[in-house]
Parts: sequence; structure tokens; C-alpha cells
Amino acid sequence: MLNIGVIGYGYWGPNLVRNFHFRNDCAVKYVSDSRNERLQLTKKHYPSIKAVLDYSEILNDNKIDAVVIATPVSLHYYIAKDALKKGKHVLIEKPMASSVKQAKELIALATKMKKVLMVDHTFLYTGAVQKIKSVVDSGEIGSLNYFDSTRINLGLFQPDINVIWDLAPHDISILDYLVKEKPVSLSATGISHTKNKLENIAYLTLFYQNNFIAHFNCSWTSPVKIRKILIGGSKKMILFDDVEPTEKVKIYDTGYSISSDEDKHKMLIDYRAGDIFIPKIEQREALSGVVSDFILAITKNKKPISGSESGLNVVKILEASEKSIKQNGKEIKL
Amino acid sequence: MLNIGVIGYGYWGPNLVRNFHFRNDCAVKYVSDSRNERLQLTKKHYPSIKAVLDYSEILNDNKIDAVVIATPVSLHYYIAKDALKKGKHVLIEKPMASSVKQAKELIALATKMKKVLMVDHTFLYTGAVQKIKSVVDSGEIGSLNYFDSTRINLGLFQPDINVIWDLAPHDISILDYLVKEKPVSLSATGISHTKNKLENIAYLTLFYQNNFIAHFNCSWTSPVKIRKILIGGSKKMILFDDVEPTEKVKIYDTGYSISSDEDKHKMLIDYRAGDIFIPKIEQREALSGVVSDFILAITKNKKPISGSESGLNVVKILEASEKSIKQNGKEIKL
Amino acid sequence: MLNIGVIGYGYWGPNLVRNFHFRNDCAVKYVSDSRNERLQLTKKHYPSIKAVLDYSEILNDNKIDAVVIATPVSLHYYIAKDALKKGKHVLIEKPMASSVKQAKELIALATKMKKVLMVDHTFLYTGAVQKIKSVVDSGEIGSLNYFDSTRINLGLFQPDINVIWDLAPHDISILDYLVKEKPVSLSATGISHTKNKLENIAYLTLFYQNNFIAHFNCSWTSPVKIRKILIGGSKKMILFDDVEPTEKVKIYDTGYSISSDEDKHKMLIDYRAGDIFIPKIEQREALSGVVSDFILAITKNKKPISGSESGLNVVKILEASEKSIKQNGKEIKL
Amino acid sequence: MLNIGVIGYGYWGPNLVRNFHFRNDCAVKYVSDSRNERLQLTKKHYPSIKAVLDYSEILNDNKIDAVVIATPVSLHYYIAKDALKKGKHVLIEKPMASSVKQAKELIALATKMKKVLMVDHTFLYTGAVQKIKSVVDSGEIGSLNYFDSTRINLGLFQPDINVIWDLAPHDISILDYLVKEKPVSLSATGISHTKNKLENIAYLTLFYQNNFIAHFNCSWTSPVKIRKILIGGSKKMILFDDVEPTEKVKIYDTGYSISSDEDKHKMLIDYRAGDIFIPKIEQREALSGVVSDFILAITKNKKPISGSESGLNVVKILEASEKSIKQNGKEIKL
Repeated sequence: MLNIGVIGYGYWGPNLVRNFHFRNDCAVKYVSDSRNERLQLTKKHYPSIKAVLDYSEILNDNKIDAVVIATPVSLHYYIAKDALKKGKHVLIEKPMASSVKQAKELIALATKMKKVLMVDHTFLYTGAVQKIKSVVDSGEIGSLNYFDSTRINLGLFQPDINVIWDLAPHDISILDYLVKEKPVSLSATGISHTKNKLENIAYLTLFYQNNFIAHFNCSWTSPVKIRKILIGGSKKMILFDDVEPTEKVKIYDTGYSISSDEDKHKMLIDYRAGDIFIPKIEQREALSGVVSDFILAITKNKKPISGSESGLNVVKILEASEKSIKQNGKEIKL
Repeated sequence: MLNIGVIGYGYWGPNLVRNFHFRNDCAVKYVSDSRNERLQLTKKHYPSIKAVLDYSEILNDNKIDAVVIATPVSLHYYIAKDALKKGKHVLIEKPMASSVKQAKELIALATKMKKVLMVDHTFLYTGAVQKIKSVVDSGEIGSLNYFDSTRINLGLFQPDINVIWDLAPHDISILDYLVKEKPVSLSATGISHTKNKLENIAYLTLFYQNNFIAHFNCSWTSPVKIRKILIGGSKKMILFDDVEPTEKVKIYDTGYSISSDEDKHKMLIDYRAGDIFIPKIEQREALSGVVSDFILAITKNKKPISGSESGLNVVKILEASEKSIKQNGKEIKL
Repeated sequence: MLNIGVIGYGYWGPNLVRNFHFRNDCAVKYVSDSRNERLQLTKKHYPSIKAVLDYSEILNDNKIDAVVIATPVSLHYYIAKDALKKGKHVLIEKPMASSVKQAKELIALATKMKKVLMVDHTFLYTGAVQKIKSVVDSGEIGSLNYFDSTRINLGLFQPDINVIWDLAPHDISILDYLVKEKPVSLSATGISHTKNKLENIAYLTLFYQNNFIAHFNCSWTSPVKIRKILIGGSKKMILFDDVEPTEKVKIYDTGYSISSDEDKHKMLIDYRAGDIFIPKIEQREALSGVVSDFILAITKNKKPISGSESGLNVVKILEASEKSIKQNGKEIKL
Repeated sequence: MLNIGVIGYGYWGPNLVRNFHFRNDCAVKYVSDSRNERLQLTKKHYPSIKAVLDYSEILNDNKIDAVVIATPVSLHYYIAKDALKKGKHVLIEKPMASSVKQAKELIALATKMKKVLMVDHTFLYTGAVQKIKSVVDSGEIGSLNYFDSTRINLGLFQPDINVIWDLAPHDISILDYLVKEKPVSLSATGISHTKNKLENIAYLTLFYQNNFIAHFNCSWTSPVKIRKILIGGSKKMILFDDVEPTEKVKIYDTGYSISSDEDKHKMLIDYRAGDIFIPKIEQREALSGVVSDFILAITKNKKPISGSESGLNVVKILEASEKSIKQNGKEIKL
């Protein structure tokens, strides 16, 4: 029986508490939040859980095995460092940290302390992404040509991070999970319509050594909610439309093969638009998969799907994208 | 009664011929094409039209008032120059020319010869774009914040131009038509999956002096056909979805207003998701509007919606985008 | 402070308990269910609520002011009768009773006992139906011509009632709410694919004295979920698509006017397909509106939207439709 | 080389002429229409075709092998009878005739004259229906449980026939093509909002001896265009959505199996919602398939897909549905 403390009871914290609470192999002992009204809410929802203002109370309790950090991003690193030093296993909300330096330091510390350090890239545990992963790994869609993501809606402006730090971790973590090769550089652009200069619209292109490209369109200011990822393979293509209630993943038996003559002007391209297959997607709460994976990592030494390497890979791209945006798309090496 | 010659009878030429042919104020006298089989087709469709292999036969006929150029892009400039020199009015398919230099030369020549030089940016004449223009000009949507276009499908690879030169002119000409301010620089990225190195996927961001951004996503290699433009205003937002049969233009009474305190961390944003209005769009063939406009420009000296300035503005962006793509997103001044 | 007992803790019961429980003007004192496992669940969810096997324990408690009946339909009448006799106010799940006779008896009893008798036609309290009601009442859509409902999906076969008794009450109660005139007769057809002869697919037409018709298509055996109601007026038409997440109600400025000559073969019809308007719909849980209405009916003598007359009107149609189905569409007078 | 005459050049006639005209194995020699302006149009489109006011001129020309009848329905029988008597093969627009009596008489006459008599049920020749037919015939979807069709839009009111005679032939001919068993009776309802008493909204249920039902929802007065057919099998279900541009046919691996105990209240139903498959549909003009079939029937004695039996089966249902509507749903034996 693992004893858990959850730090941060804002938007996502209640979901984390619920998922840990209803398991039989662990118990949520503490919730901390710096806002009194959130603690009152915790007490109402879970009278059995201790609600504290100061998270160090959790870290100082020796009976606590693991903590979950669901605070603003800027605090992730500091709390996680404290927790690891105190010998706790740590699950952090995405993005893992505010910089590559911080992320690397946390990884080193977790290795040293022999503790699990995991990032909550929830999307990796959805039935849809698991299905796509199995299709990509099977070779059915051939070699990958592109990844094109759009995640836009009328979203909550975050006061401390821009739209890429807020929305893109979902899609970048999916890309990182599906594609073995890592990007060599990137170019990003964006705009801020607020005084704090944090971009509310941003575009990001990742460059690879091989014949592959990835692009991300992120916005908090779209009147329509679009959550689409297109994945182009040499044999087939996949559309992941997360707004669709029942047809989230479509596999298109669609492609084109290029037979060039020596004379490049006589390029012949054979198009193929064929059947479409919509696999049944397992319905389950992705977050329960995250929680299971975290507990298995602690108790069985299982390598988690969304480990600290995944967290670092995402932060690398976020950090570089910010540099590129400030220079209007300048290529930044990774 | 104007006498017209159409040069090029490939994909778009037949539509041009049909639109000129069925008018009462002009007559199509010639069609030229360098391919014999296309000429045979012309003869079958229009026995009364003279079908010739060499377009100079058209230019040399003094009775011809105007020519329409629907050839591969690389020939636009040469044929248009010849035609203007021979004193013909000229309508050119989009994009107007292969370079800014060519476009400017044609404009100068047309001015000197006092002939109409117009570009067929067909989309400007659709009921949908006309409706959007009137909504934007009315001030109803407030000041413009962004323009975000996606035009992707399983499209024909062009052998001589990349996907931006092929698809983006539609969207760039719409942007140029709607927004008075012109971009100051751009950043573009892309990838080619063919040996000829012409990009089949590309992304383009336009930067402006004021608080506005434009982005274009173009692809010939998407399994789904998407043709969406989002236009964000300070008061309302517009979605133009050209794949929708009956609901092409949606006006969202949606917005957000930002009231920042001095302390930027206490930014307050008031979201508003309100009614949606779908105006009735006039059903008509856009190309007939292009043809009318060309004829009125010749006969009544009317300034065309899609004049040579519009053509030049588009080519400027296309040319610069190519440079940026080759340097992985480097900002190119316009 | 009203004291409430909820009878039946199956599919819908938990929603009722939750809605009453979180109010400040009432308290759920009891939940009863004949299944021990459901009582265990109640205790887990709400330790403060008394969970009993026998609902008469609730009725015998003098401190209980009102009961909510969420049992199988066949029990509604018996429990409601007992409850009214014991002087409780009663809220019953739809459909109100298994026959017109039962429904009328309950109404008479409630009148005699001076107690509130209300039926949970939840849909009447949705933002969508409230919006449609206000549009229809305003006269904006003109006089009503038709009501056409489709409610089909891969649904749970009910073991004791057919698909019309299960699904149609939603749509019939909406119709009854919107249209003042009542049907004079009906014709229904259907089929059962199960041994118990309860129809899983059924179709129902309601006839009216004036120039109006209503039709219902109900199925538990459709692979797709469709929940559409079309309401045709002489000036405008409404589409209520409950599967749409954000565009549930569309008002079409669409119509036709008929100008007949004396010679009927020269009928001239002027079609009009105009703008479409999608009003913002208030987001709220409909059931909380039902609960409020019930409490206001008890405490303030407010006439509820979904009163016992509405319940009776629905049961009349259900009962007659069953007769018609068994006679392959024979017209049954109402 | 067959010589063809087309009688009627209204809405559908031009499509028929075009399809016959561009073939190499036949020639359209005549078009007749009682309206001079339609004849002028014919002459403009096809200068080589003789345009005549009186169709008997066509029938009297011995060189004419076959005629196509695209007139108002009420004339089908009279013209077809004349044509068959003159020894012409006959292709008639749907519906074949105005009554069962007329249809049977034409069939007898065609048999006697040894001439082809075919009905243009165009939909049977679409790629979608051909695909559905092959899926149904393969047994893949199991035994058929139901057929549910909706064909509604803001449609042209026909001055001489009601909405069932106008729209339902499409769907009834598809049903007749897919399902071997024939209905034993029907029930229909409807309403007319015009003075001529012809229904503009109508509903039709067909009853069968086996465990199958078919239903049709037809309207000229819907603000939205819906053209959906659901076909339920014991193993799988099919959705044919003709408004979808690229996903017209969806095959749902969805079903339910019922295992009843003797005690009917313990009915156990196992639901299954599985993968969805969207087969590629051959893109072609359905009408060219009709024309081919007609010519092969004449020249090669091929039995056409849409023969006179199909025409009769449809008319039987139309005629009976009219009787049922006038008696508010009364069951009419077929």
C-alpha cells in the first residue's frame, strides 16, 4: 500500500486525487494547496484526506512514498527537487519543468536517489494514442513522412506560460512517443495579443535528418475547437480527431508513389485513395493509466510509457521554440 | 463586342472558354494549346472556335482585343509580355508570374501600353469571400487579430512549382483583399518528398507591424480535404469552410477582452462565446465574376477586384517564402 | 428545509440524489432500492443518507415531505399512490404510469390530497428546449406545420417496456410543451426482434385537427446515435440536434409560400433558403431545473413546467401507440 | 448502332440525351418536348439532333429502335404503350406508371412485342448501391432486420404527384434490389400543406412475413437535406449517407445478440460496437450505367438490373401507400 500526497488542487489536481483515491493499492494521505478555498473543497470531497497549506508538511512525513505535483509550471522544478531529496517518488504534471537545465537536474537527482520520476503526459495513455502507436509500430502505414497537429479553441489564457508551453506538450509527447528519430532543429512563430507578451497563437515546425517533418498549430483564440493530428506514412495515413465522439482514429488506405524518370519534369505520381478503416477505440480514462504506470514503476520497477526522458524531450522543444519565436522563426538547433 | 483568345486548354482553360463563350458582349475566337489532343477537344466542344498550336497566331490577329493565359506558370510572363506588346488586354491565371521582377515588368508594360492587366484570383469573386469582405469592412468583427488558413488534400503534384506556389495564392489573395496592411516579413518551412525538391508540404507565417499575424498550411499529401480559413477579430470571428456545402461562412459572436492590471500577473480575460450566424451566400460561379470584371475593366475602365497589384502582392510573398523555406524558416523581409 | 426520500437507485437515481443533495433548501434523508448492491453504493457515495430496502420505511417517516420515484415503470403507479396517500409530494420518472387509467387516478388523488404530483420530463428543462420554446412562443417561426423526431442508437433493451415507452416520452413531452393543440388520433408501426415481443424499432404519427403532423422514429438498434427534431413553421424552421456539442439549435430562415391559382395545376411555390442562426444555449444540468421546479411547486405553489397533465398527455399517446402497433398502423382515436 | 429518341426535355431529359449522345454504339436522333423553349435549348446544345413538338413523329420513324420517356408521370403509360405498339424498346423514368394496372399492362405488352421495357431507377447503378448490394449478398452483415430511409430537403413541389411518388421510388427500388422477400402489407401517413391535397410530407412502413421491417420518411419541406438509409443485419449494419462526399457507405461491425431465458424478464442482450469500415466507392455517373444496361438488354438480351418487374414492385407500393395515407395509416395488403 503506497501512501500518496498530491500537491496542487487546482484544475487537474482533483482528477489526480480521484484516480489515486479509488485504487486499492494506494491511499491519498495529503492534499496541499496554497489557497484556502481549494483546501475547503478538498475537505468537502474527501473528509479522510489531510488538507494542508504547506507542501513541506507532506515531504516531511516519512510515511509518504510518492508525491504528485500539479502546481503552476514554474514551481515544478523546486517542489520536485525537494521531494526527490526527501526520497519521494515523483509524478509531475506536463510540462515537466521550465527549462532543459531544470529537467536534466531532476533526472540526475532521481537517478542518484533511485526514485521514480515520471511526467503526466496523459494523452499517451488514451485508447486512441495506444491504437495509433500499435498501428505505426506494426509497419502498416509504412515509413513516416509527416506529423501535422492542430490544437486550437477558445482556451484559458495562462498567466505564466505561452500557448506552446500550455497546449503543445500534448502533441509533442505523442510525436515523441510515436517517432523514434528526434528533431535536429526547429522554427517557430507566434503572436501575443496581451500586454504580458505571452503568445496566444503559435506555430512550430520540427526538422529531422531523415525525410520527415512535424508541425504544430496552437491557439487559445479560435472560435471553434479543433484537435486534429494527421500522420502521413508511405503506405497509409492516419487522422486522429479528438473532438469526434466515436470516430477518433481513421486509417486511410491512401498514398502516392513517385516514380521519377531521370528527367525530373516527367515525374509520375500514382495516387491512391482507398478504403478507410475506423478501429474501435478502448474507452477508459487515460489518467487511470498514468496512475497505474506510476505505481507499477514504483512497485515493479516497470519502465513507464511517460518517463522523465519523454518529459525532457518535450521541454527541449518548448524551450527552443520560445527562442525561435522571439527571432521570428529563426532556426534553433536542438 | 470583344474578341478573345484563350491560351492554354488544360485543367482551367475549358472553364475560361465556357465563361467567355456564353456571354453576349464578347466572342472567343481562338484557343491555343501546344498539345494536339487538347486542340481536338476544343474543336469537339466548340466547333466555331479556331484551335491553333502556336499562340502567336492569336497575338498577330489584329481583331483580337484580349487574351487569357492559362498555361504553366513559368510561361505566364513571356506570353503576357508578348501579348501586351501586341496591344492586347491580358488576364493571367494565378500566380501572375514566376518572380517579383517579372510581375513588376508586366505591370510597367501594361501601364505604358494602357492595357488592362488582371490576374484570375477566382476566390475573390465567390459569394463567400464577397460576404466576408462586406462583414470585415463593416467593422462588425472589430480590428483584425489573425488569419489562419489550411488548404490540404490529396492533390496533384505540380511538376514545376511547389505546393505554396500552387495552393497558397488562393488564400494569400483573400488575405490581401481583406486586410489593408501589408506584411513586413515572413518565415516559411516545408519538406519535399520528391526527387525534384519541390515542397509538397509547406507552412508560412506572415508578420505585420501591427498586432496581426497570418499563417498558411498547404499540403498535397493529406488524406482528407480541408479548406478552412479562420479570421479573428477583436469583436467577432469568422470561419470560412469551403468544403461545407451549405454553411460556408460562420460568424461567431465570440471574443475575449483583456483588462490587465499594472501587475501583469493579474491579467483578467473576459471570454465570450455567443450566438453564431450563418449568412446566406449567393450561389454563382466565381469565374463568371472574374470574366465580368475583366470585361468591365476593358470597356468601362472599372478598377478590377483582382488587379495586377493583387497579383504582385501575392508573388512577393511566394518568392520570399521560397527563400525562407530553403533556410529553414529564416525571416525574410518583404 | 424539505426532507426528501428517493425510491430507486438504478441508472437515474444517483443523478436525482446528487441534485437534491447539493441544494441548501432540502435534504435527502433516505434512498431505497430492492437490490442490496445498490444500497451499498449509496452508502459509499453518501454516508449521511439512510439506505433502506423497503420504500415503505420512507413513506412511514412523518418527517419526509416528498419522494422521488425512479423505479421500473410498472411500479410508478403503486408507489406514487402509496406516497400520495401518506401525504407526500411526488416526483415520478417518465413515463408517469403504465396506463391512462393509472395516470388519471394519480392526478385525482394528488388533487384530493393537495399534494404536488410532477413528472421528470428532464428535456423540458434543457437550455435547448427552453430556447426553442421562447422562439416558438414569440411567433418568429410562424404557425407550426410539422414536428419530426428521430431518436435512435444502439440502446439498452428494456426488459419490461417497448422502445416507444422508453424513448418517445422525451420527444412527446417536448411536442406537448411546444404545441398547444393536442392530437386527435395516431397511427403507429413497429417490430420486435426479441422473444418478449416488445418492439425495439417503432414509428409513430400523430394527427391533428389543424394543418399539423408529428412523427417519431425510435430505435434501440441503430449503429449511429441520432437525436434530431425538426420543427417546421410557416416562416422559419428549427433543427434541434442534441448530438451536436455546440450547435444544438439552428433556426433556418427558410420557408415556402404557396400561391395557388384556381387551376390547381398552376400552383406557384416560392422557396426561400436564407440565413441560419445558431443561438447560444445556456449550459446547465437540466435535472437541476426539474428539482428546482419541484421544490418551488411545493414551497411556493408554482405551477411546474412538467406537471402531471404533461405526464398524462404523454401516457395517452404511449398507450394508444401500443394498440396501433399491434394492429399494423390502425388509426386510434385519442 | 441503335437509333434513340428521347421524349421529354425537362429536368432529367438533358442528362439522358447527354449520356446516350456520347456513346459510340447509339445515336440520339430525336428529342421531343411539348414546350417550344425546351426545343430551342435542345437545338442549341445539340444541333445535330432533330427537335420535335410531337413525340408521335419519333414513334412513326421506322429507323428509331428505342425511346426514352422523361415526361410527367401521368403520361408514362400512354407514351410507353404507343411506343411498344410501334415496336420500340422503352426506357421509362421512375416511377414506371401511375398505377399497378398500367404497369402490368405495359409489361404484358412488352412481352407480347418482345421488346425491352426498363425503368430508370438510377440509384441502383451508383457505386454506393452496387457496393451495398455486394456486401449484403456476401452474407457479411447476416440476415436483414430492418431498412430505414430518410429522404428530406427543401424540394420542388411536384404539381401532379405527392412526395412519396416523387421521392420514395429511389429508396423503394434500392430496398427491392437488396431484399429478396417482398412486403405483404403497408401503412402510410402524411400531410398536405397545399390546396391540391398532394402530400408534401409522408411516412411509410412496409410489413413482411419474416422478421423484417422497412420505413421511409419523405419530405419536400425540410430546411436540411438528409439522404440516409440504415440497413440493420444480424451481424453488421450499414449506413448509406448520400450527402457525404467521400464516406457514403459505412459498415458497422455492430450488433446485438439476444439470449433469452425461458423467463422473458431475464433476457440477456450482448451489445457489440466494433470497428467501422468505409469501403472505397467507385466514382462514376450512375446514369451511364442505366444507359449501358438498356443497350445491353436490347443488343445482348441481358436481363437489366432495373427491369420492368422492379418498376412494377415500386408502383405497387406507391399505389397502396396512397390508399393508406387517405385512411390515416390503415394497413393495406399488397
